[in-house]
Amino acid sequence: MLEKIDLNVTMDKKTCKKAMEEAGARLSVLQRECKAAGIPVMIVFEGMGAAGKGTQINHLIQYLDPRGFDVYACNRSTEDEQLRPFLWRYWTKTPAKGRIAVFDRSWYRSVLVDRFDGLVPENQVSNAYQDILCFERQLTDDGTVIIKFFLYIDKKEQKKRFRKLSESKETAWRVTPEDRERNRHFARYQQITEEMLEHTDTEYCHWTIVEAVNREYAAMKIVSAVADRLAWELEARKTDQAAPQNRGNYSPSGDRFKNGVLSGIDLSKSLTEAEYKEKLKHLQARLEQLHSELYRLRIPVVLGFEGWDAGGKGGAIKRLTSHLDPRGYRVCPTSAANDIEKVHHYLWRFWNNVPKGGHIAIFDRTWYGRVMVERIEGFCTEAEWKRAYQEINEMEAHMANSGTVVLKFWLQIDKDEQERRFKDRQANPAKQWKITDEDWRNRAKWDVYEEAVNEMLVRTSTTYAPWIVVEGNDKHYARVKVLQTVVDALEKKIREVKEK
Amino acid sequence: MLEKIDLNVTMDKKTCKKAMEEAGARLSVLQRECKAAGIPVMIVFEGMGAAGKGTQINHLIQYLDPRGFDVYACNRSTEDEQLRPFLWRYWTKTPAKGRIAVFDRSWYRSVLVDRFDGLVPENQVSNAYQDILCFERQLTDDGTVIIKFFLYIDKKEQKKRFRKLSESKETAWRVTPEDRERNRHFARYQQITEEMLEHTDTEYCHWTIVEAVNREYAAMKIVSAVADRLAWELEARKTDQAAPQNRGNYSPSGDRFKNGVLSGIDLSKSLTEAEYKEKLKHLQARLEQLHSELYRLRIPVVLGFEGWDAGGKGGAIKRLTSHLDPRGYRVCPTSAANDIEKVHHYLWRFWNNVPKGGHIAIFDRTWYGRVMVERIEGFCTEAEWKRAYQEINEMEAHMANSGTVVLKFWLQIDKDEQERRFKDRQANPAKQWKITDEDWRNRAKWDVYEEAVNEMLVRTSTTYAPWIVVEGNDKHYARVKVLQTVVDALEKKIREVKEK
Repeated sequence: MLEKIDLNVTMDKKTCKKAMEEAGARLSVLQRECKAAGIPVMIVFEGMGAAGKGTQINHLIQYLDPRGFDVYACNRSTEDEQLRPFLWRYWTKTPAKGRIAVFDRSWYRSVLVDRFDGLVPENQVSNAYQDILCFERQLTDDGTVIIKFFLYIDKKEQKKRFRKLSESKETAWRVTPEDRERNRHFARYQQITEEMLEHTDTEYCHWTIVEAVNREYAAMKIVSAVADRLAWELEARKTDQAAPQNRGNYSPSGDRFKNGVLSGIDLSKSLTEAEYKEKLKHLQARLEQLHSELYRLRIPVVLGFEGWDAGGKGGAIKRLTSHLDPRGYRVCPTSAANDIEKVHHYLWRFWNNVPKGGHIAIFDRTWYGRVMVERIEGFCTEAEWKRAYQEINEMEAHMANSGTVVLKFWLQIDKDEQERRFKDRQANPAKQWKITDEDWRNRAKWDVYEEAVNEMLVRTSTTYAPWIVVEGNDKHYARVKVLQTVVDALEKKIREVKEK
Repeated sequence: MLEKIDLNVTMDKKTCKKAMEEAGARLSVLQRECKAAGIPVMIVFEGMGAAGKGTQINHLIQYLDPRGFDVYACNRSTEDEQLRPFLWRYWTKTPAKGRIAVFDRSWYRSVLVDRFDGLVPENQVSNAYQDILCFERQLTDDGTVIIKFFLYIDKKEQKKRFRKLSESKETAWRVTPEDRERNRHFARYQQITEEMLEHTDTEYCHWTIVEAVNREYAAMKIVSAVADRLAWELEARKTDQAAPQNRGNYSPSGDRFKNGVLSGIDLSKSLTEAEYKEKLKHLQARLEQLHSELYRLRIPVVLGFEGWDAGGKGGAIKRLTSHLDPRGYRVCPTSAANDIEKVHHYLWRFWNNVPKGGHIAIFDRTWYGRVMVERIEGFCTEAEWKRAYQEINEMEAHMANSGTVVLKFWLQIDKDEQERRFKDRQANPAKQWKITDEDWRNRAKWDVYEEAVNEMLVRTSTTYAPWIVVEGNDKHYARVKVLQTVVDALEKKIREVKEK
């Protein structure tokens, strides 16, 4: 999830300040209403070292009535705490009805810092996840609202902040040797974090990832998110929307995906004809070799292709398969579900095409239709597409756990490029069949699609099944990037299998 | 869960046959209705070897229209199946809307037989559980009804059946060397089974444990259970009770707990005064030694006491603590929740009393109030007590995982004995305070309580936190049994810790 976060997100200072003040004013009122309604609230701050958890908590609580909240700094557990089950210190701090408990670090210690520092042995990690999930489910079932923030900065920014803190005597003590260690091994810490987010971003208890480089922006996002969540909860309790069984119905304001991954893509990337031919030839030959290695090692491969209409999926798939042994791969095109498919679970038809060891299954459009076209066109209910993110992650995790390489490509073009291509197709008798009225209709919904795609990319890009956003305005560049990514991933997997 | 199953359950032949025919007739109609309603149904048969899965499936399907179901025998996976993620073979067999799929063994292979036979390595087991839970949740969320039976026989019965099968040439092939191996290591297989039941008896997908020694009784129970479940589902779909968020609302007919654990207890067990004194002295001395070992090894201990009013909890606790160092234990009496406790999660107050390493916490009445008095008196909603079984199991698992010894005692007396004791108390000025009108009121509800207790004992007796039913009519016997059980459990734990 983290690699799809745009840390350069900005907002002009004035707008940001205004939004912050507006949200803060709402929050003050909402706190009183929650108190009256007897809602217990837990707000969790986790994040990279020096991401500004303390500062952000300060921003937040200035809008709260101090008689109604407690802040708990959860440092390394004391000797006394270590003598008890690790959830004990958090259970005893769960807020009474109507109160707010703010946690500066939390029960996530055990799967983040404490795990990294070696205080929680690796064979205990999976138990700890289980315990955390139970803890949050039990509390939310009982009516507690849990709001979780992960404050994210990258290695460079962290190093810069550590350096700045170290320069002054007043603040130098705040940078511990462990902090430096975590910065040195940032990639490992980030991987642990990714795993944590994947395991614990549940439908009843979402993570909000906060781009914490810009402090004002982060503060505004946090205060707004808390206010939005509480407002929803209060409204929901008027009907039975907030009953335990409906707890999955809340989703953070759609707005947060308006300026998402796709807006940060550099579509000017391109290759000359000569570069393209040279690279293509080399990569296709390499892929051919790898394909037979895959076969010998019985490694299954799943490649999913999604993208805008006319984004170049077909062309990329063609370059991918042209040198492959046709007995060892299969292209599975996905169109609207047929009668048989309609009377099964939406994932059933894809399960039927799961490749066996040594084979490559290439999906031209995929199960992600659930959270794009089905979501937008209303072919499934809101509850259905909302739970689909988790279902899809679980399916891909199951494949990856059984040794499958899973890669997903999003072929990105801009709106102008799409128009050019649509018009080309209409003008070319051999390609006219590729363009229908529906394509133009979908195009009209570009913005809603973009929002849905942004959400999809963040919520389903996992360490075990990453999304690769391909800059597709230049077809040559796009095809080479796809091939290169596949070759790299297969080489890595083959190396891992051989090392075992 | 298994040790609380009464394999000697009987029913007279005629009643049983009549119940079977009635359920079968209902089932035929229900199948048609489910087809019309487009409900996909999966029926899973798991069980000990030779428990009669095949026979029972035959009984069941004779009531079904053969055009509407498929039976899948799930043997060891083929080479082709092994080349894919293990859920693939089951996903592809999920039934279309309106159809029934019957599984003779199932996806549970991977955590039962295949695990026992070493085909699934131990470090993959926890992943397999995760995958199974996701699989069932995804399908039930989508409207599939999954009904799971576990056919249980004990070691002796299994051996007998194997012997009988081996005697004839026609059936001898059915007993494989693996079967014999599993019989030889029955305890280990049973433990694996217990673990499976604990992990996968979810609110949306219950296990029905079938006492399979008496085949007619088993058949009747299975056919009735399927009919009941389908009838509920059809009814529920008329409102929104069957929506994914309400999937936990179904619970198997309460009747199944009417003749439960408690009816099989031998209350005539007793000790003479001399035996009692001798044993008590010895056990108390031993417990004192163990207490200091606990302290040195930092092992926490949780002992929970429940039982009928006047069942002897107080007396047993007194004998337990009389020789212990008071700095190392604490008795936590549980009465109705106070104002502070009421505004927290019902488990919060018990979390506050979780003992630290080396200490013993003795709970006089416990968190099980949720599924007894709170259930029966309507102090919590049906949804709340129904999900409490899982919540409690999770809490105890968390304690056990962190090294805590968890034991729960149910002090059982019969109704006459209770009356005698109540009257004794009323007649004794020193004990009059112990008996109130409420006790008499509760006594009037003996039968509903008994059913609730039976359900509780089955659903929350786990390998990591077992229930011990104590025959309590003779106080001497009861006290010694409690002490002996605690001493044995502590000795075992101390041995384990030392061996590590």
